[in-house]
This record gives sequence, C-alpha cells and structure tokens, in this order.
Amino acid sequence: MFGARCLLLALRRCSSAPCPKHTQAARLRVCEALEAQEVAGDIKVQGWVRSVRSQKEVLFLHINDGSSLESLQIVADPSLENRDLTFGSAVEVQGKLVKSLHRMQNVELKAENIRVVGPCDTLTFPFKPRERQPLEYSRQFPHLRCRTNALSSLLRVRSEATAAIHSFFKDNGYVHVHTPIITSNDCEGAGELFHVRTSDKVQERGENSHFFNVPAFLTVSGQLHLEVMAGAFTQVFTFGPTFRAENSQSRRHLAEFYMVEAEMSFTESLQDIIQVMEDLFKKATSIVLSKCPQDVELFHKYVSPAQKGRLEQMLKNKFITISYTEAVDILKRAPQTFIFQPKWGSNLQTEHEKYLVKHCGEVPVFVVNYPYDLKPFYMRDNEDGPQHTVAAVDLLVPGIGELCGGSLREERLHFLQPRLERLGLADAYQWYLDLRQFGSAPHGGFGMGFERYLQCILGVDNIKNLFLSRDFLTPVFCSSMADSHGPICAAGLYV
Amino acid sequence: MFGARCLLLALRRCSSAPCPKHTQAARLRVCEALEAQEVAGDIKVQGWVRSVRSQKEVLFLHINDGSSLESLQIVADPSLENRDLTFGSAVEVQGKLVKSLHRMQNVELKAENIRVVGPCDTLTFPFKPRERQPLEYSRQFPHLRCRTNALSSLLRVRSEATAAIHSFFKDNGYVHVHTPIITSNDCEGAGELFHVRTSDKVQERGENSHFFNVPAFLTVSGQLHLEVMAGAFTQVFTFGPTFRAENSQSRRHLAEFYMVEAEMSFTESLQDIIQVMEDLFKKATSIVLSKCPQDVELFHKYVSPAQKGRLEQMLKNKFITISYTEAVDILKRAPQTFIFQPKWGSNLQTEHEKYLVKHCGEVPVFVVNYPYDLKPFYMRDNEDGPQHTVAAVDLLVPGIGELCGGSLREERLHFLQPRLERLGLADAYQWYLDLRQFGSAPHGGFGMGFERYLQCILGVDNIKNLFLSRDFLTPVFCSSMADSHGPICAAGLYV
Repeated sequence: MFGARCLLLALRRCSSAPCPKHTQAARLRVCEALEAQEVAGDIKVQGWVRSVRSQKEVLFLHINDGSSLESLQIVADPSLENRDLTFGSAVEVQGKLVKSLHRMQNVELKAENIRVVGPCDTLTFPFKPRERQPLEYSRQFPHLRCRTNALSSLLRVRSEATAAIHSFFKDNGYVHVHTPIITSNDCEGAGELFHVRTSDKVQERGENSHFFNVPAFLTVSGQLHLEVMAGAFTQVFTFGPTFRAENSQSRRHLAEFYMVEAEMSFTESLQDIIQVMEDLFKKATSIVLSKCPQDVELFHKYVSPAQKGRLEQMLKNKFITISYTEAVDILKRAPQTFIFQPKWGSNLQTEHEKYLVKHCGEVPVFVVNYPYDLKPFYMRDNEDGPQHTVAAVDLLVPGIGELCGGSLREERLHFLQPRLERLGLADAYQWYLDLRQFGSAPHGGFGMGFERYLQCILGVDNIKNLFLSRDFLTPVFCSSMADSHGPICAAGLYV
Repeated sequence: MFGARCLLLALRRCSSAPCPKHTQAARLRVCEALEAQEVAGDIKVQGWVRSVRSQKEVLFLHINDGSSLESLQIVADPSLENRDLTFGSAVEVQGKLVKSLHRMQNVELKAENIRVVGPCDTLTFPFKPRERQPLEYSRQFPHLRCRTNALSSLLRVRSEATAAIHSFFKDNGYVHVHTPIITSNDCEGAGELFHVRTSDKVQERGENSHFFNVPAFLTVSGQLHLEVMAGAFTQVFTFGPTFRAENSQSRRHLAEFYMVEAEMSFTESLQDIIQVMEDLFKKATSIVLSKCPQDVELFHKYVSPAQKGRLEQMLKNKFITISYTEAVDILKRAPQTFIFQPKWGSNLQTEHEKYLVKHCGEVPVFVVNYPYDLKPFYMRDNEDGPQHTVAAVDLLVPGIGELCGGSLREERLHFLQPRLERLGLADAYQWYLDLRQFGSAPHGGFGMGFERYLQCILGVDNIKNLFLSRDFLTPVFCSSMADSHGPICAAGLYV
C-alpha cells in the first residue's frame, strides 16, 4: 500500500500529467520515492542510470532524475539486465517501493520491469561511472555537465534561492516589476554598456540601425525605473538580468548576471535599508539551507570546507555597521601594507574590503556614509558639511567582498536640481526631477548581485561557475568557458 | 486594541523595517488597514493623497499607497488642513483606525496628525483630482502614470501573475533555470534578431566589436537551453525576457516581451504537454483572480466588459483539441470568405484562428499535428506519412489568438540527424545531436507569451499596454509610446 504522503504525491503527479499508456503505475519523482515513509504499491520512476552493478543473483542500479542529489537504488533480477542498460542511459523502471535493508537508504525499488528509453553511447560519452573528473574537464561539455553532481546541485540551489528571494519580497508586501532590459539610460554611468542594434540586413535595407530611434543599451540596473514605481507602489522589487561589457578575466565579474533590486518609499533612514538587506540575506539563506541541505553540503564538503562555519556565523550574528570614515581609520591603523594606500575620499579596494571584514571578526559589515564625490548624483546628501558625505551603504561579506550596494535617494528638489545642473544632466533627467516635484517621498533601495549571493552560500570562489548557461551553444563559447579555471577544479570536485 | 490579524501584520512590518523615529505608531499598509476586522490603536499610514474634501466640521482625505486599488478614508479635524495637503502630495497620517459608518468601507482612519512629506505642484501636475483623462493622455507621462488607477491595477496583476506562474511550476517539481539573454543561437530562425555589441569607443580602440568573439544576439527563446536542462532535471522552466526586432506597429507584438517556457522529459504524448498548458492557465488565473479581484474587475468593468464572462467560460470548460487537418476542413467549410484561402500546408492566419475559436464556442482550442514542412527541425515526426505532420500544438484563445506554442521534440537520432543534414545545420547543432546520443529521453515543452496571457485575463486589446517600463526614460521613447493608441483609450479609462 501507498503511504499517505506517497499516494498524495502520486495522485498529484498524475492529475497534472496523466500518461494514458501507463496508468496502472503511479509515476513518482526520485525525491518523492526517497521521501516515502512507507512502502508503496506499483510505482514508476524515470531517470538516468548513475550506476549498474551486476551480481550473480541480483542487479543493482542507481537512478537519478535531477529532483535530488541522491539517487534511488533499484534492485532487480539479473534477467532484467540488457546491453543498453548502461551508465548514462535513460530508463523507466516499474516496480514496488520496499523498505531497504541498507543503512544509507530508507527505501529501494524492487523492479518488475526496466525499459531503456534512450541508450547511452558509453564509448564516446565524456563521463564514466565512478571516474573522477575535475570540473575543469566537465567544462568542455557545457551541454552535458549539468548531469554531474556538482553542477546539478548548484542549479537546484540557484532555483531554490530564486524562489526564496521572490517569497521574501512578496511576503513583505513588495510589488514585483519587470524593469526593461533594453533601455536608453545608463543609470549611473557604471561600466561599459552593451549596445543593441538590428541586424546588418536591416541596415542594408537603409532602415535605421537604431530600432528605437535613439541609441539603446542593455540595462546595467533597474534602479531608476524602480524609483518611478516606488512612487506609486511604495515597495517594489525586480530580479532580472543586468549587463556589463567589461571584458574582465576576473573571478568577480560576469558580463551577464542577475541582480535583485528593491526600492522603498517613506524610508527616512539608512538603517531601514540595512535592515531589509540583512533580513533578505538571512531569510533567503535559511530557506535555501532547509530546502536543499544535501546540495549545499556537497559544496561545503568538497569545494569550500571553510564555508559552512562561515555561513553559520553570518546567519547567527547581527551584521556590523561602520562608517566609511571609521573604515578608513581602521585601514590606516592596520598593521599591514596595502597596494592602494587607504585615504579618505578614495574608493575602498578589494584588499581593503577583505581587511575590514577580517577586522570585524569575519562577519558581514555594512559600510555607510561615503564621500559625496565618490557616489552618483542620486544619493542623498547627509548635510554633515558642504557636500561631504552621502547616505550610501555597501554590504561587505567574508570571502566575497561587496555583495549589496544601496542608498537613500535625494528626494529634495533643491538639492537634486543644482547637482544635476552642475553635471549637465538636468535636461536628460527632467523626468527624474519631476518625481521630486509631485508628491516626492523620502526613499531608498539597494541591489544585490545574485551570483555573488550564491557564491556566499556555496563558497564557490570563481563567479563564472554560477551562471552557466550562456555558453552552451557554440564551440567557441564552449572553449571560452573552458578557459576560466576556478578553484572548484583545484578542489577536485568530481562527477 | 488591534485585531489579531492587524497586530500580526503590524508587528511583521516593524520587524522587517523598524522606523526608530516613530516607534509608537505601528505602520500599516493601506491594504492592511482596509482588511483590519477590528478597530486598532495608534497606527500610521503613508501614501499619496487621492482626494481632499474639506467641510466645515470635518476634513476627508483618501490615501493610496499602491498596495490596493482602494484608498483609505481619513477623517480629520479641519484644523489639520494645510496648504500643502493637496491631490498628489505624499503624506504620513497618524491616528486611530475606527469602524466606518459608511456603507462602502469597513474602517476609516481618524487622524491625529497629518504630515505632508512631499507636496505636489498641482498647477503643473498632469493629473487632476476626479478629472477624467483617457489613457492616451496619461501615456505622455510614463514616469507618472503608474499612479493612475488603471496602470497600477495592471501592474499589480502583472506582479501577482508572475508569482502565480512561479508557484505553479515549483509546486509541480520543476527546476527554475535562468536561460541566457545574450546568445549565439537563434533557436528557430524566428524573426529578426537584435545584435549585441560593445560600444563604438571600444571598437575605436581597435578591440573586437564582438565581445564574445562570435556574433551575439538577444535571445528569442530559451527552449534549446531548456532541452539541455531537461536532460538532467526532467522538468524545468524559465520565465524571462525575449526579444524580436520586428518593427511592428501591430497590436499583437512587442520587441521586448516575457515568455514562460517549460520542458519535460519522459513525455511521450502531446496530451501530456496539453495538460500542463491547460493546468497552468487555469491554476495561475484562478490565483490571480483570488489575489486581486478589484484590480481585475476594474478592467472588466471599464475596459473590456465582455472579458469577464469569456474568462469564466475559459476557466469552467475543458479546452478543446482539434487537429490541424480538422482545422483546415472547418475553415474550408466556413460560410465566410477569408483574405487568406485556407489550404492544407499553409500557416493558419489570425483570421483563421479567430474563426476556429468562434466555431468551437469561444473556448480555448488546441490545434495539434501541423504539417512537417511548416515547423522547425526539432519537432517530432508523427510518422503518419513521409514527413507528413509533426507533434506540434498551438493554443488559440478567444480574443487573442495564439497564446502558447509547443511540441514533442525529435528525440530520435536517426530522424534528427538526416533532417539537420538536409538543412546544412548538422555541424552547428552537433551539441544538440549529442543530447540524442547519450541517454536521450522523449521530451517536449511549450512557451507562453506572458503579455498575451495578461491580455487574456484583463481583456486589454493592445499588447503595448502590458509591458510598460521600457519607455520611461527619454522624451523620444515617451512620444513613441504615445503613438500607440489602443482601445484602452477608446474605452475611456480614466485616472
């Protein structure tokens, strides 16, 4: 008989995707079968063979369908073996879920029927059973490597983290906004922009190469659009792709990456924004850890053994807040020499950020109130001197550096207008000035780099391992991926 | 005293964003105040003034913060009035939530203190209280129009629909994937592509204008990436922006739009895909209708009075399935003449789709099994004749036409390889052939245009009203928006 939970899951699966040919056996995902508390009647499991072990009296298989890191053990009569039943083949197994006698697993599937729906050419398949290959090797096969343990765990974590972030904002009353990808605005002049044009064909036809009549770029931030929306919905967020055309070989930058951005009206203190950042980090991370503990553990065990403790510290402790001025003082008093001399009025460099985090006890640190001249026009003047500091905040985290950046925005027309005029931007930003003329509310917000956030959970040092998909589809892209070697390889993570 | 629900909400708000200056009064969103079942102690509401009515003995305000279509009524002593307290101004009101005597509302806020945090220059503000302006007018002010009822309702519906679609897939065990935006692949040769390049500056420096060494485009579909992922996770989905550089003035096309795409392994029948499409539509729509009934009703009342009944019919009835061949027969027998003569082997035109939906009783219709030669290489041969039909499906819905398109994919190497060779694509798609060589599973999937889906719920005829954000930021973009007049204007929807 089915366990109640098992039956429920089976019925749900069937109602959403009935399979008329095989209605007798309920189809279960591997994770559902593994979670079943009681043995169950006739079920069907589909997936890919991870191991085949043929003994005289019994045939053992492990089947994985990507629903969990763990595979389901299949026990079968040796007569069910056939030559297509190999590592990597796609199979459908029907049988009874029974209590397993093994210590490591709760249940196993006693197979009555095994059907190979897609054989695997094991001679040319780049992965072998139990053969340990570093990730550097699997990078050569971007279209196949998501079948390895490490990459599939990473992508399940990415999926859960995406959901957790959406939930956090939704539960707190934020309206989700799709800010535009193609835009005519470069937000803060941050980094090189990608230009968007129609094809040469269209240009040859004599049509305007600027599809939108003006130069168009790929967005670097949705902040300004969010400010518009926060003027109507009070609390808004976006979570989408952003782009920087910096041809960086750095481990800390991607050309295409995802950003979580939030904007809150009626926010009069930087502390309000800091609180949302900290809550978001802690809440989303707790959800991810509870939803895919095995996937996270794989990384903490094999890739970054130090990360587990570090992450626990981050979740347990209150984040620290220091001012930029304090930060510079700390750096100046530091017993070590920096490549960049710390100086009030200069940007904090990666070496500085690392030192500050270490100095504060390896917990996340909010650095607030940066020099006015370092920051973009929209940040709010603290009025602690003539154009001295603005209400900006960066969140620095152990092992990563800057994870989030935010600020109060200058909501006062008589501060914003002269600043834009000095920059020669008053005309271009008339719409932005309008927002300050018609029911302007004090507001602020922040952005969090999503891949950096994932680095923070998993301890993956090279950010290029965290956005995987771009490079699938051409040999050129594939080889360019293989160029970037991260410590994930050095750490010897295997298939 | 607070009602339990009210108190809970208030405490939750405070813990996520404490406001040290005003800890006495709990901050409530307007929707939370309106939902309060019991009167409450000292609360604070922040938002924008929608109306001011000053009587001899009492001052009435309506405050909206974007959390709901409905505004909260404020009752105050006339002594609290001041000259900045006008339509459009941003205010903070503190007081007691009391039972309202009015029939139309449950509670009202008896103000003890009103603070105007941002006045509104009513002379130049383009919207006036109770002055009815068609949407055509508000399109001139893309940065302000989300403060109007229609646009804010539309964006709340968009936000809820986004969440509902994510939930649907998550609840059914799908892994979410961020498929790449910049890609070297054009998927199915569908439509004009946008090209992505670095700036002229970079090119002048003599650097390669192709950032990725190969021509790069904005994605038209994530399907092929999803197929890779379905080979590891069984069930996957993506929900992101896609792009077509068709400079269409049509009401049915956008250059930048959102697409929901799903891919399922071990799917052997088109019926499985059809079921997921129907479930997705019905489940997500039910959630949206239950989460923001007032917002949807605004559209059903003022924009598209016929849509309410139409939508109810769609949700109540089982969708109909007919074959392409049947569809052509129906069209040939139709008592009306078409601009395009219906003919087996030709694409269905919009006029044909409309007729088919009408013929089937104004319910959604799945048209299945299209001619082989009409469809892209990846669709599965039905083997009902030599290259006769493929297992493709389009979902046609009343008032919109095509909402979804999907297919079984050709998982058989000995079918796919010759087809790609005939097209001269075998080399470029070697990675795709690989997927069929290593544990290929029968699979299929579909895509749903998100803006078309919203059209379907709201009855907005011109799709350009549903993705609003692109055109905020420059006067050129603004005026190009103002060009597209939809019936949303004709219907006279007002601020």
